[in-house]
Amino acid sequence: MKELQELATESVHLATDNVRQGGGPFGAIIVRNGEIIARGVNRVTANHDPTAHAEVMAIRNACEVLDTHQLDDCILITSCEPCPMCLGAAYWARVQKVYYIATKDDASAAGFDDSFIYKELEKEPASRDIPFIRLELSEYNTPFEAWINMEGKTLY
Amino acid sequence: MKELQELATESVHLATDNVRQGGGPFGAIIVRNGEIIARGVNRVTANHDPTAHAEVMAIRNACEVLDTHQLDDCILITSCEPCPMCLGAAYWARVQKVYYIATKDDASAAGFDDSFIYKELEKEPASRDIPFIRLELSEYNTPFEAWINMEGKTLY
Repeated sequence: MKELQELATESVHLATDNVRQGGGPFGAIIVRNGEIIARGVNRVTANHDPTAHAEVMAIRNACEVLDTHQLDDCILITSCEPCPMCLGAAYWARVQKVYYIATKDDASAAGFDDSFIYKELEKEPASRDIPFIRLELSEYNTPFEAWINMEGKTLY
Repeated sequence: MKELQELATESVHLATDNVRQGGGPFGAIIVRNGEIIARGVNRVTANHDPTAHAEVMAIRNACEVLDTHQLDDCILITSCEPCPMCLGAAYWARVQKVYYIATKDDASAAGFDDSFIYKELEKEPASRDIPFIRLELSEYNTPFEAWINMEGKTLY
């Protein structure tokens, strides 16, 4: 079983190595019972996927390995404080705990939008830098009604 | 060119149809110059991927179609107010605008954690339901130093 400090160091090395391989400076690992079950690195520009952050990639890889959409017996260790997207991904995956090394301010100092997006969340949706506008539609709730009435669905 | 109301209705129909196909009650579309270029539906349980929300799927699909990691000339229309993960994805994709139909409270009433995760964001990282713990490491900034010193990198 690896020590936490050793695992943290590994996530930082993943991040640094990824820069040399054309990716962003972020790395993450998913650990269960002290063993690494998945790794992830930032592949946004390489994969043409703005959602391919290290934490999202590690979560997706871990779910594939474990054949599940829930990682409730896992912890996430990431080289940098998760952005709101990755924080959300950690919640939806229901990991036990998140450890991070650098902060969102360190990421901002290197040119990334993490702190900016956190601040955007505090604004009213329509006043954000990217405006979030609600459209009124009489059938707005039909998807949820279909969901509630669906028998045999997999809850999550 | 389709009207906004028509596009909104389509996202809601996508969401409802997806329930019948074993997915979650969420649908999203990416529009450029009034034309739909990609669609996405919630495939969390079907794909064993907690990040497979409708908006994330639509963004990934649109980036694949357009061969880019930026959707700055696109708008996102989604059947429900984006959760923090999908809000983050919209910011990283840099869409122009987001339109949504149902609200996060409608989603909560149907059993989804959207409002809960928004509230978690307001807490101190270490006090969250999923604790976010910072680990001190002397080499915490080496990935960002490697990034800053990297020549020929693709900025985003």
